[in-house]
Amino acid sequence: MALLVILDGVGDIRAKGKGTPLEEAKKPNLDGLVERGAVGLMSTLGMGLTPGSDTGHLAILGYDWKSEYPGRGPLEALGVGMELKEGDVAFRANFATVIKNQIVDRRAGRIETDEAKKIAKTVEKIKIDGVEILFRHSTEHRGAVVLRGKGLSAKITDTDPHKIGELHACEPLEKTKEAKKTAEVVNKWTKKVMEILSRHEINKKRKLPANALLLRGAGMYKKVEGFEKRFGMKGACVAGGALYKGVAKYIGMDVLEVKGASGDRNTDLEAKRKAVESALKKYDFVFLHIKGTDSFSHDGDFEGKKGFIEKIDSAIRFDFETDVIVVTGDHSTPWSLKGHSGHEVPVLFSGELVRKDDVKSFNEYSAMKGGIGHIKGKDIMNMIKNYMGKNEVVGS
Amino acid sequence: MALLVILDGVGDIRAKGKGTPLEEAKKPNLDGLVERGAVGLMSTLGMGLTPGSDTGHLAILGYDWKSEYPGRGPLEALGVGMELKEGDVAFRANFATVIKNQIVDRRAGRIETDEAKKIAKTVEKIKIDGVEILFRHSTEHRGAVVLRGKGLSAKITDTDPHKIGELHACEPLEKTKEAKKTAEVVNKWTKKVMEILSRHEINKKRKLPANALLLRGAGMYKKVEGFEKRFGMKGACVAGGALYKGVAKYIGMDVLEVKGASGDRNTDLEAKRKAVESALKKYDFVFLHIKGTDSFSHDGDFEGKKGFIEKIDSAIRFDFETDVIVVTGDHSTPWSLKGHSGHEVPVLFSGELVRKDDVKSFNEYSAMKGGIGHIKGKDIMNMIKNYMGKNEVVGS
Repeated sequence: MALLVILDGVGDIRAKGKGTPLEEAKKPNLDGLVERGAVGLMSTLGMGLTPGSDTGHLAILGYDWKSEYPGRGPLEALGVGMELKEGDVAFRANFATVIKNQIVDRRAGRIETDEAKKIAKTVEKIKIDGVEILFRHSTEHRGAVVLRGKGLSAKITDTDPHKIGELHACEPLEKTKEAKKTAEVVNKWTKKVMEILSRHEINKKRKLPANALLLRGAGMYKKVEGFEKRFGMKGACVAGGALYKGVAKYIGMDVLEVKGASGDRNTDLEAKRKAVESALKKYDFVFLHIKGTDSFSHDGDFEGKKGFIEKIDSAIRFDFETDVIVVTGDHSTPWSLKGHSGHEVPVLFSGELVRKDDVKSFNEYSAMKGGIGHIKGKDIMNMIKNYMGKNEVVGS
Repeated sequence: MALLVILDGVGDIRAKGKGTPLEEAKKPNLDGLVERGAVGLMSTLGMGLTPGSDTGHLAILGYDWKSEYPGRGPLEALGVGMELKEGDVAFRANFATVIKNQIVDRRAGRIETDEAKKIAKTVEKIKIDGVEILFRHSTEHRGAVVLRGKGLSAKITDTDPHKIGELHACEPLEKTKEAKKTAEVVNKWTKKVMEILSRHEINKKRKLPANALLLRGAGMYKKVEGFEKRFGMKGACVAGGALYKGVAKYIGMDVLEVKGASGDRNTDLEAKRKAVESALKKYDFVFLHIKGTDSFSHDGDFEGKKGFIEKIDSAIRFDFETDVIVVTGDHSTPWSLKGHSGHEVPVLFSGELVRKDDVKSFNEYSAMKGGIGHIKGKDIMNMIKNYMGKNEVVGS
């Protein structure tokens, strides 16, 4: 069995007189793995490129982030539990407050999950010009939208302007009748949704009514080769965030439901550990995703990230019985930059068949001296299979 | 001049409390090369991928193992001295003992070379449905078969089940008339060969008669760009094993016949050294292949591998006058795993134009700290040309 742990956005650079959170955190279990393994640095997509969470995960899990990337929308839709059919066009969706076509709040006052769920029921299924439009709410203001019908296109613009201001009309990005039709349907739907939502009892009482749904990240769903077919292993995913579940579902892994795994900094790490432990009894390959490291970095919170790494170390413990454990991130999110960057991510491999190096600590700087050297995201799965003694000979 | 030495399957991992054979062997000459050069680690096909002997050698010699790989059959056929024409379909072949369609021994009791050669004469050339089928015996039970005729295909199954059991019928792997026809011809030929062989005087006396020929590794021959055209160097090969000679011949190198170079652990290393020495006077590039390291590993024989490395060190001496000497393996074959693996292989470059590092020993673990870093098989030929001062400028 193999365990792949992605600590989201874990890579940092030394800044403001401090070591990185990985350097400064006490993490005896992770460092112990390094003592029994080897480290290196990974550029997920290629040196200097800054991965998104979606492309980054696809690459690490052995999928081509250029030809096999369906766009963010379908991955989110799968992640919130929607079933997709080939040709569906999917989006991420946000409840927002719109007054006189001006977006006043992009998150409708960060509406609570329970209220949003009730409002969502009124716009879950709408049909326009023969196209079925499905909405599924997930948490707080978030959800996903799927357009299902003949002759659709994902070559259209977002209606979400990504900032306060005018609600954007959806425009075709290419001169095809499919793009034109899809944009028209989105615009009619947006209008209809606003009519329905503005009449809702809950919204009449809210200071910032959830009276519109903003769309972004359009993508067309297409089935890809399954993980088991590609790598000869049954895979399971333990994650909180919708996107990571969506990526796992997209490639045909089983997504395990873990109570308390919230995909944020309050996630129940002990519950995740237990889920991994039992999954390793049934699956060849387990993918554990932990989001909090990234969230603290986006807030520029050095102490928060350092403390969260310590929590991970003591809760997850990393003492599973496996052929190989890999720990890395999908990309760097230096806390001092508050956003993703193209810096490499430290990666560790620990297991019987790993050639040990003499590095003793897991961090960005010790990894420069590791025996693994500099690898790419797409190398990870082949290396895992090799350390499991499972690789087929290429040629003969 | 350049010398490329491939110690087949030389890479190991530390196991069972021991260092690797390369770490534990006394090899002052190889280590001396390192003192005057630099080391690194090479993934022949890509990180974590497990190379076959055929794809591995092609990659290191500068050929694309995806688009320029003809399959194992044509390389073996070339290696046993057969001439191939474009469109020929070739196989590896084994003498076997078959009784009532059951394979009783896949090697016909490891029949001796002399007896096998006599039996082979009766089935060297057979014509079926307009297709000429040529058999060439090499050593013991081994040989190669070539089908020559119009409209053939290599998309067919082996008749060799790779284990004791029923003789397999050859089946087409795709629905084309070429594949169907080729499979039919193979099946008719197999039957005819069994009739002829079972009547042979020698077989009547053998306990395990060599009364069938099993086929595997079908491939269609296609000419590739020659080594001299591609790299501007006249190349020669010093090898014992058929496959390595075949690879060299496939890319248009001269294959030097060296008496005593057997391609096994009893090969005459002194004879090989002499052959290299004289080849370096006539050729720009010499490829020396030594198989024994791999054979000991397949048997799980740590001491054997270690001792053989010491023999290589003292017999080859590595003191040739060249611009650059490269020593590496085609893949790792850890003795503890008894098979090929996807672990990187140590590689050393020694020569006037090589930037020296401060590593003093040639092994898997010292190579982690080498100045060459981590390279791929396809980098080797460009690096050799560069260290020869022979690289053309790319662009201007």
